[in-house]
Amino acid sequence: MFQPIVQYISVKAEPPSLGDNTADADRLRRAVGLALDAPQPVIPWSRLARVATDFRQAGFRGVAVVNEIPGGFEIVDFLAARPKVLAAMALDLGTTHLEATLVDLLSGDCLARANQENGQICFGADILSRMHFAAKNDGLEQLNRAVLESINGLAKELAVLAGLERSEIRAISVSGNPSMVHFFLKLDTFNICREPYIPVVNFPDQCRAGELGLDIHPDGPVFLLPGVGSYFGGDLISGILATGLDQAEQTSMLIDVGTNAEVVLGNREWLIACAGAAGPALEGGVARMGMRAGPGAIEHVQVDPQTGAITYQTIGEAKPRGICGSGIIDLVAGLYLARIIDIRGKFRRSAAGSQLTETPSGLAFTVVPASQGADRRPVVLGQVDLDALIRSKAAMYSILTTLVNQVGVSFEELGCINVAGAFGRHIDPAQAVTLGMLPDLPLATYQPVGNSSLGGAEKVLLERGARQRCKHIATTITYIELNVNQEFMMRFSGAKFIPHTERQLFPSVPVFE
Amino acid sequence: MFQPIVQYISVKAEPPSLGDNTADADRLRRAVGLALDAPQPVIPWSRLARVATDFRQAGFRGVAVVNEIPGGFEIVDFLAARPKVLAAMALDLGTTHLEATLVDLLSGDCLARANQENGQICFGADILSRMHFAAKNDGLEQLNRAVLESINGLAKELAVLAGLERSEIRAISVSGNPSMVHFFLKLDTFNICREPYIPVVNFPDQCRAGELGLDIHPDGPVFLLPGVGSYFGGDLISGILATGLDQAEQTSMLIDVGTNAEVVLGNREWLIACAGAAGPALEGGVARMGMRAGPGAIEHVQVDPQTGAITYQTIGEAKPRGICGSGIIDLVAGLYLARIIDIRGKFRRSAAGSQLTETPSGLAFTVVPASQGADRRPVVLGQVDLDALIRSKAAMYSILTTLVNQVGVSFEELGCINVAGAFGRHIDPAQAVTLGMLPDLPLATYQPVGNSSLGGAEKVLLERGARQRCKHIATTITYIELNVNQEFMMRFSGAKFIPHTERQLFPSVPVFE
Repeated sequence: MFQPIVQYISVKAEPPSLGDNTADADRLRRAVGLALDAPQPVIPWSRLARVATDFRQAGFRGVAVVNEIPGGFEIVDFLAARPKVLAAMALDLGTTHLEATLVDLLSGDCLARANQENGQICFGADILSRMHFAAKNDGLEQLNRAVLESINGLAKELAVLAGLERSEIRAISVSGNPSMVHFFLKLDTFNICREPYIPVVNFPDQCRAGELGLDIHPDGPVFLLPGVGSYFGGDLISGILATGLDQAEQTSMLIDVGTNAEVVLGNREWLIACAGAAGPALEGGVARMGMRAGPGAIEHVQVDPQTGAITYQTIGEAKPRGICGSGIIDLVAGLYLARIIDIRGKFRRSAAGSQLTETPSGLAFTVVPASQGADRRPVVLGQVDLDALIRSKAAMYSILTTLVNQVGVSFEELGCINVAGAFGRHIDPAQAVTLGMLPDLPLATYQPVGNSSLGGAEKVLLERGARQRCKHIATTITYIELNVNQEFMMRFSGAKFIPHTERQLFPSVPVFE
Repeated sequence: MFQPIVQYISVKAEPPSLGDNTADADRLRRAVGLALDAPQPVIPWSRLARVATDFRQAGFRGVAVVNEIPGGFEIVDFLAARPKVLAAMALDLGTTHLEATLVDLLSGDCLARANQENGQICFGADILSRMHFAAKNDGLEQLNRAVLESINGLAKELAVLAGLERSEIRAISVSGNPSMVHFFLKLDTFNICREPYIPVVNFPDQCRAGELGLDIHPDGPVFLLPGVGSYFGGDLISGILATGLDQAEQTSMLIDVGTNAEVVLGNREWLIACAGAAGPALEGGVARMGMRAGPGAIEHVQVDPQTGAITYQTIGEAKPRGICGSGIIDLVAGLYLARIIDIRGKFRRSAAGSQLTETPSGLAFTVVPASQGADRRPVVLGQVDLDALIRSKAAMYSILTTLVNQVGVSFEELGCINVAGAFGRHIDPAQAVTLGMLPDLPLATYQPVGNSSLGGAEKVLLERGARQRCKHIATTITYIELNVNQEFMMRFSGAKFIPHTERQLFPSVPVFE
């Protein structure tokens, strides 16, 4: 159902006469109200003179640009001719990266896409350090300015790619975690990170691009995906929208791994969600040689189960610089199957041979010798990294188990497990199952869904139903706080083995004694 | 029914806890929505940070300041304690004068009143010359700035009188003719004065004081009384509201004499209106010695019917400087009864004696000799002035007759004739009847109603019903264009006699042959 947040409404009004002396603006309003089959739209004062002039100059015929606003519609422009596109920007406002698409609200087509590092990174790599920075002097002001600059840069890039003026971008939707949304709206994050963890707002009202300092059409509506709590934001609500979890007949799941692992379970009748710190080792934040997916990152690894010989593929076929999340999972799963790592996730000295060496920070396994690495540096996997991965995978599996147990469904009953983001795009579910990170299900159950935060942001621009759904989702979803959950902590201990202490949970994975 | 445009809503919310981690703004919104028994109000982004902070600092208890906006409500402030008043400004935006009251939306009391000359006068005394000025260079800009300065001056004066800050004036309602409203909103008046006489807007949407440049609370709602056409503005709609014509069981009338005479006839089922140029002689714009009601203006005159001896009263008991509208009506009626003026409105040389002299501009009658006048100047009434008055009174009576005939009611059926403004306050209906300006009805039929434009502006601040009514009135009222009305022109000729060519219409007025 196409009911975009901005519409072109064709108008053919009779010119005024002594017999019909309706005022210009009221004449336009009447025509648009009839066309929309809705109460007459408003014309904000800031646009009134211009809209009325353009309407008259166009001979009372042309196209009204109409925004949907809370409680109705507003007319913000009048054009003599109907443009070929109606551009709006969907934005995934990530802590590290911003990703955006320019969507044509007439066709639903993607006109351009772009991404950029979050300009706030210079004030702190992670959310907590930025919140700390925000609390000092004009920290919030600086963080706000930085993210606006990044967004405006993206808007410019998108406009150039699509051959448009920036002012032709007529709306923007923003999906981000609560803290990022607060920085974007220049709101205090002080209470987000302090018990009982209260944001300033979870349901920000629609506002205007101009008032926020966004360099698109000044009266373009800014639609913000609502959040649920301090650690459950619009990005995840957006993911639910994008995957249609809230409309699915069969209970399904959405896994989004960023800094946290965020998981939603549900169907068209109920939704339950939780989040936990399972991400760092997977996203490349912990492993010494870990890195984000980028040129030179080892993204896939094969280990010969008999000889332990390693082959690998890097992104961009560059010389290896490090290992990204999917590569680490492949590597550890392969090393386990080659019996170089035991079920506790410890290197087996006897099996590892000369690739395993003592270093000042403990045992380390050489994946790529210095002679083959970029800048003649080796790529290694330390016992420390391995331990972090084991914790992450244990956390992930425990999160998933706790969640399904909470509502009394089994993994086997799930229609689909949507795996979002780079994690979903790159990991090999078979390897993740081998590690005991994901449940032992038919591999077709796992569906990579790309950037679902961005996907939902696109949807709200295009569909009124999605704009309403996201509020409904945020209002009705049940959120479980894992940090205070006993069951989770118990399950976590059992999951710190490969694949798991309860072997019957992973029938497809070979077990070695 | 008290449903003011701004309200204080008392809020006692539970502080957030791990068990109820609703965000601050959402918590406030929820509480206010419940108290209003309405969908949750919005909080505009410009107020969000401040409102949320103040709500938290007040311990989640206090008073939300809530504006009614199209389609719902918005929260713009949160106060720890309930102030004693909730001030809003009602403004009659006259071409010549601005008159304003400060109303307490809690009690309906008037906190202060003030008036000021319209600062636009230096750009043109009348609307037409200002429209002309507006069309040149930055004329509109200058007119807009001038009227804003006047209004801001009034706001300051009202605030001082009431012992408040200007930012404590939390709303404003504006009632004015279409051109004045256009200047106020910085809208082009080019098409108002050109056939087919089309304003930019008759139903301006509610806007915010800050965006218009008004020096009251920046988010205070600005409510504009809607107009009907280029020559029928919000000031008259306001008068209908103030007199309750649209709710009257018995058909009644409202007469408002400014530059034009504007007349409305109707009851709770229908309303019909017209306007015509009947005013100048009455308002003091034409008579050489005419002046607006002010110190030294002769406001009442008695002429001894036997001797022709004249006594008079001036405003402020000052020496006479001129005659205002009510004085001229008294004078001419008295001179007619003393047979110094004949039924055609001409001086009778034989009867006038030495008070009548030839001047370069025709015959002139000395009302006050130079020896008694201010600055030793006489006050005279010229034949020219007299002719103007006869035309005005003929126009007035013709307008009234045309209007009642249009709907087939007789004057005798009218429940009440409300006479607005200074004209209503000062004229003696008996004298106006003698002249044949007003119909020969029991004098109690005539009710002075003061500044009804201001009265209606006060009403819309206080009552939601009035805000809705004014839109209904403007949408349903029938407006007759007299300039193209044949009947009016015919009646006008017959009415140029004192009291009228058809004597039976004025049985109470003596007729001399």
